[in-house]
Amino acid sequence: MESLKRSIEQLAKVFFEETVDIRRHLHRNPELSFEEFETCDFVKRQLDRIGISYETMAGTGVVGLIKGDKDSDRVIALRADMDALPITEVEGRSYGSQRTGVMHACGHDVHTSSLLGVAKILQELRPFFGGTIKLIFQPGEEKLPGGASLMIKEGVLKKPDPEVILGQHVMPFIEVGKVGFRSGQYMASTDELYMTVKGKGGHGAHPHQNIDPIAISAQIITALQQVVSRYADPRIPTVVSWGKIIGDGATNIIPDKVYLEGTFRTYDEKWRVEAHQRMVQIATGIADAMGAICEFEVRKGYPFLTNDPALTNQSRSFAEEYLGKENVVELELWPAGEDFAYYSQEIPACFYRLGTGNSAKGINSAVHTSTFDIDEDALELSIGLMAYIAIRQLES
Amino acid sequence: MESLKRSIEQLAKVFFEETVDIRRHLHRNPELSFEEFETCDFVKRQLDRIGISYETMAGTGVVGLIKGDKDSDRVIALRADMDALPITEVEGRSYGSQRTGVMHACGHDVHTSSLLGVAKILQELRPFFGGTIKLIFQPGEEKLPGGASLMIKEGVLKKPDPEVILGQHVMPFIEVGKVGFRSGQYMASTDELYMTVKGKGGHGAHPHQNIDPIAISAQIITALQQVVSRYADPRIPTVVSWGKIIGDGATNIIPDKVYLEGTFRTYDEKWRVEAHQRMVQIATGIADAMGAICEFEVRKGYPFLTNDPALTNQSRSFAEEYLGKENVVELELWPAGEDFAYYSQEIPACFYRLGTGNSAKGINSAVHTSTFDIDEDALELSIGLMAYIAIRQLES
Amino acid sequence: MESLKRSIEQLAKVFFEETVDIRRHLHRNPELSFEEFETCDFVKRQLDRIGISYETMAGTGVVGLIKGDKDSDRVIALRADMDALPITEVEGRSYGSQRTGVMHACGHDVHTSSLLGVAKILQELRPFFGGTIKLIFQPGEEKLPGGASLMIKEGVLKKPDPEVILGQHVMPFIEVGKVGFRSGQYMASTDELYMTVKGKGGHGAHPHQNIDPIAISAQIITALQQVVSRYADPRIPTVVSWGKIIGDGATNIIPDKVYLEGTFRTYDEKWRVEAHQRMVQIATGIADAMGAICEFEVRKGYPFLTNDPALTNQSRSFAEEYLGKENVVELELWPAGEDFAYYSQEIPACFYRLGTGNSAKGINSAVHTSTFDIDEDALELSIGLMAYIAIRQLES
Amino acid sequence: MESLKRSIEQLAKVFFEETVDIRRHLHRNPELSFEEFETCDFVKRQLDRIGISYETMAGTGVVGLIKGDKDSDRVIALRADMDALPITEVEGRSYGSQRTGVMHACGHDVHTSSLLGVAKILQELRPFFGGTIKLIFQPGEEKLPGGASLMIKEGVLKKPDPEVILGQHVMPFIEVGKVGFRSGQYMASTDELYMTVKGKGGHGAHPHQNIDPIAISAQIITALQQVVSRYADPRIPTVVSWGKIIGDGATNIIPDKVYLEGTFRTYDEKWRVEAHQRMVQIATGIADAMGAICEFEVRKGYPFLTNDPALTNQSRSFAEEYLGKENVVELELWPAGEDFAYYSQEIPACFYRLGTGNSAKGINSAVHTSTFDIDEDALELSIGLMAYIAIRQLES
Repeated sequence: MESLKRSIEQLAKVFFEETVDIRRHLHRNPELSFEEFETCDFVKRQLDRIGISYETMAGTGVVGLIKGDKDSDRVIALRADMDALPITEVEGRSYGSQRTGVMHACGHDVHTSSLLGVAKILQELRPFFGGTIKLIFQPGEEKLPGGASLMIKEGVLKKPDPEVILGQHVMPFIEVGKVGFRSGQYMASTDELYMTVKGKGGHGAHPHQNIDPIAISAQIITALQQVVSRYADPRIPTVVSWGKIIGDGATNIIPDKVYLEGTFRTYDEKWRVEAHQRMVQIATGIADAMGAICEFEVRKGYPFLTNDPALTNQSRSFAEEYLGKENVVELELWPAGEDFAYYSQEIPACFYRLGTGNSAKGINSAVHTSTFDIDEDALELSIGLMAYIAIRQLES
Repeated sequence: MESLKRSIEQLAKVFFEETVDIRRHLHRNPELSFEEFETCDFVKRQLDRIGISYETMAGTGVVGLIKGDKDSDRVIALRADMDALPITEVEGRSYGSQRTGVMHACGHDVHTSSLLGVAKILQELRPFFGGTIKLIFQPGEEKLPGGASLMIKEGVLKKPDPEVILGQHVMPFIEVGKVGFRSGQYMASTDELYMTVKGKGGHGAHPHQNIDPIAISAQIITALQQVVSRYADPRIPTVVSWGKIIGDGATNIIPDKVYLEGTFRTYDEKWRVEAHQRMVQIATGIADAMGAICEFEVRKGYPFLTNDPALTNQSRSFAEEYLGKENVVELELWPAGEDFAYYSQEIPACFYRLGTGNSAKGINSAVHTSTFDIDEDALELSIGLMAYIAIRQLES
Repeated sequence: MESLKRSIEQLAKVFFEETVDIRRHLHRNPELSFEEFETCDFVKRQLDRIGISYETMAGTGVVGLIKGDKDSDRVIALRADMDALPITEVEGRSYGSQRTGVMHACGHDVHTSSLLGVAKILQELRPFFGGTIKLIFQPGEEKLPGGASLMIKEGVLKKPDPEVILGQHVMPFIEVGKVGFRSGQYMASTDELYMTVKGKGGHGAHPHQNIDPIAISAQIITALQQVVSRYADPRIPTVVSWGKIIGDGATNIIPDKVYLEGTFRTYDEKWRVEAHQRMVQIATGIADAMGAICEFEVRKGYPFLTNDPALTNQSRSFAEEYLGKENVVELELWPAGEDFAYYSQEIPACFYRLGTGNSAKGINSAVHTSTFDIDEDALELSIGLMAYIAIRQLES
Repeated sequence: MESLKRSIEQLAKVFFEETVDIRRHLHRNPELSFEEFETCDFVKRQLDRIGISYETMAGTGVVGLIKGDKDSDRVIALRADMDALPITEVEGRSYGSQRTGVMHACGHDVHTSSLLGVAKILQELRPFFGGTIKLIFQPGEEKLPGGASLMIKEGVLKKPDPEVILGQHVMPFIEVGKVGFRSGQYMASTDELYMTVKGKGGHGAHPHQNIDPIAISAQIITALQQVVSRYADPRIPTVVSWGKIIGDGATNIIPDKVYLEGTFRTYDEKWRVEAHQRMVQIATGIADAMGAICEFEVRKGYPFLTNDPALTNQSRSFAEEYLGKENVVELELWPAGEDFAYYSQEIPACFYRLGTGNSAKGINSAVHTSTFDIDEDALELSIGLMAYIAIRQLES
């Protein structure tokens, strides 16, 4: 365990610079979800170079296999996502995006370059472990229906069947050198809500000749608060937020309709289904009761992400071995969506956070912003830690 | 016209004291709605004494006929109501109610004694007018379904068919010596509302296991405001008021149901029907949308009372002749109920107010209170004016 | 009276064609509110031609005086408004607007040309009546603060002081040949409402870190229903309508603010003031209670227009003399705004409607639409009737 | 560890019957909160018999000390509550309450008798462990301000200062033979809400003359939903439930006021304080905005109970040693109140559940019901387990 740690630490140092270069290459050449053509080719060439066999999946996904020399049937999976976002990066970075309007603003360049670094370390260490490591380079995390769901459909969790899966994600609010874990519910299911309340427009002086969609929408918005306050189990975090409301008449003209957009997030699949029905029932029922028509669409996003307690506690303790207890922090519930959630619905999964912030250097922009960046020192830890957890896991 | 007025003024003086006595007799012996047995007998004996033929109707109602000697087929009706209220009169009045818990607190004793006085005057004046006057002594004005509706069903407006009908009502807020008229809408339709919102009670700590009838009732009450603010024509006065709300759990126990009582008042029969439907639809629809059941009963009261413009303007000008312009005031819309409304839905009707207050003497208690009283001087004017209007109307 | 009527009928026939020509000239050359420069000059030249002295007021307003030869100190005023609207007229009319985007879509061309026709008739008839007629050609009826309020400030109701004022307005929903009157409340006070609810925007997944202006606006809109349903006297028609609501975040972004526009209309100046206060108090109070800020502006429009009962009943009976009872209809309450209301707050006023529709000819477009037009036959009646009412009024 | 377990198992068998007798004695003689005079004396006599020194606290509380013979400064506390409830027990039980209207319906008889049993075992085992065990027999758990808060004020956690505290509670929904643990938040803070909305009553036909407390209460209830749906962090379970609402007018009489009672529960002391303020601000602010007055009282109950993760995980693993893994279950968050919470705010605490149900025998009534009972077989496990955890803890 100590010698394994030392070996990996050394290898992480060896592959660090290369990993930085790859991360910068990817950062300069970002591609949108499900259009990761060059990234896919790049990953394949890298795997060829390392000597890892692979197959293509879900169009632009790549799945490689590393088999340790020792005898073992065990299989685990490591996942990195590869797509970038339609965001224009701030100017002035030597490794800045060369594609205007596209940017690796969520750190998927870090995830992909790290998994390649992990692969190099594991490939070197084959004589010392048994079992198989499945490397999943996944497309389209940022876009429905999520690359994870497509790869699962195409069999990424079969032949061989990994018993567990691990993934990591950059976190600018954790300092470089640290990582974060959370057992159980971690990220929320995220569904988009689209509602149109159709009344009958007309002159504001004659309310009785119209069906007022603004007044009716107010009733519906008010009633839908109860989905959270009355219908949800208080123990299941649940959010219904409306972000857009447009009713576009004039001072004296009641409009024909009001349009709303919102989000629904929660942490329980059974309740999620029930809540969708309840929201539709409340909104359409009230509209109907008041003489209007309500069209309510729930555009389903990813399910909630749950970190298997046993796997997570074990991974956390491996991380503590590798980094020291003081560098492993407890994460809070994070009500954003992540398509790694699909894996977590299938097999024991652990999604942990890599500290990439550096307050001293002013590196602390949130993901999905044009100024997002990382402290690249995180990459050495990133590749070493994941390789260490993977081997420890296989041997546990 | 002048000589008619003088004759009537003299006769009113003659019959004044007798009318006071009768009013006091009735006041001492009040009877509840549809139980006006003694009052009915008393009226019949009085009519016998005057020499007026009559028939009984609707149990305790009496209908008499006076026919002028001149040749005319015209018929008009005069109406008085006879029932008292379940109110305990204040003590100390020489003519106070001798039946504890029953009181002529709405002036029907005044209406009945006045109509007998009118009958006496008209009987004297038979040689001087033509046409028939139908005297309607009506039971049960204070109780659904209203004596008026029963008497109409039994044919009080047939054989002979009065072309118009007049009624008067005491008004403590108008000084004795004056009367008030209003053309068009005058008193409101008054319907009672009974609503029970049935959810599912249980412990307040587990809202998701219950259906909260208090939270749902709040939504319904709020939505029903729109019946007035959005669904009613702003030009039709409309009121939805809830007076009672009972949800009887405890701090930590959500009750099974919430019970409400209210009133609905308006001035348009078509809208009234539509509003009843709208209220039921909104209340039951919202309850249903939120998983509860709402039982909503509209207990229909009297329709709205409309004073025929032509008849009312004419009657008002006759009153001005009799009392002087300065003693005839314009009434405001009065959103209480009155079963005279049923007559007004059938034939041209005029319901006017007799001033019975006297601020100098401190007579100003509202009707339906235990301290209600009148300045009896009003009775001389009351019998003279109605007789005058009746004859002028027949001769117009 | 009969001979006056016959004389006026003849003169109306005489001046009819000229009035049509003037109306068409004005229709071709519409000018926006307070920019009626050419119209003002045109009116002055016409008055010069007729031989009527005048003065200019409120920039583009003109006030002429006609004095009857008989001895009398009495003065009455007749008012016409002159401005057009920013509406593009449909094409194809020979007398169509020659200014794109400006159109006499509210009949003020009819009012102005008619008052000039009235002036011609009255000028001819001077030998036959006594008293003074003030002709008010008013600018800016369509735009706050209303030409009427400006002219009153500049003294239009002084020196000489008219005892009453009359105005007429086209009405496409009344057939040509008829006119409409209504005593008492007729048109509503019309105030514009502007409300901004300022919360604190942010990610929809973290409601507790934001102050949600959409949810708070829903509470405010809901509560403001009670201004009509609970705080207004049910006998005073009152409307609060919101026509625009804009909260422009995204599915997962709660916006910083919600912006609303609406209208407030009623028929009582005391209640209007109280209602403004109540609305502000409810909206700002609820926002404050919920941690937001509400900016609520009431942009005051015209007061309500009340037709003096005595003047209106008299004018109606003069109209019945001139047109026959069957051609004079009762108007319904009309909850639009009209700056003639300012005159009605100062002196007895009567604002009546001139039937200009012709269903057989398909002339029935509403005012303020690009297809609005009149049956020009109405002009003969228009000039004759107003002249007749004016003289009858002066001699009453 | 194994021999300790075997020794304790034997002693638990030895003292089992005695513990049953004591439990039955206490069950027959229940006393209400802060009136546990006989119970207090009984406990003292028992401790005298066992040879344990004690002192009295908070009136009817008793605190005993057992010191192991081995050398150690460590101190831990074990707590049992002693009060009964104002509930009338069902008839027919040989050990049923002999005081009508008072009943041990929450198992405090079990907690007290068990702690005496634990004391006997520990007293026997003194030669084999080091450190001090503080036995806390606490009064008034069921009544504000809670016996725990009083005993803490009187120094129960001082001299000697226990480093941790353990408590157990019966649980009819867990089968006898099992126990349940939960790390972190476990039971809720529970505050009572009392709200009176004072308007101005009057006749329902004249809403503008009243201030309608029913309509305003509906707005307040509706707005308060947002305390949960918008103002609470979705990750902190929060409940606002109203259980009672009384507005006692009549169909046509708007009442002067509406009275409400409710409960507020949550799991975070900072948010609890903020939520109290927010509720008061929303309710009083809306009432004020609408012209009413709202009196809002928050009657503070116990804080939330948090089980220290380290202590709880350790205690759970001790329980697994004693009972086998299969007999230790994970508890769900339980939003009831418990004054053990006060200890948990001071020092690391662990409150676990003793399975006392037996579905085969039909023992499954909830606590606080007249039919509540336990399978007394639980007492053997109860005394053994707590003794085992205590010694293991002292030696850890």
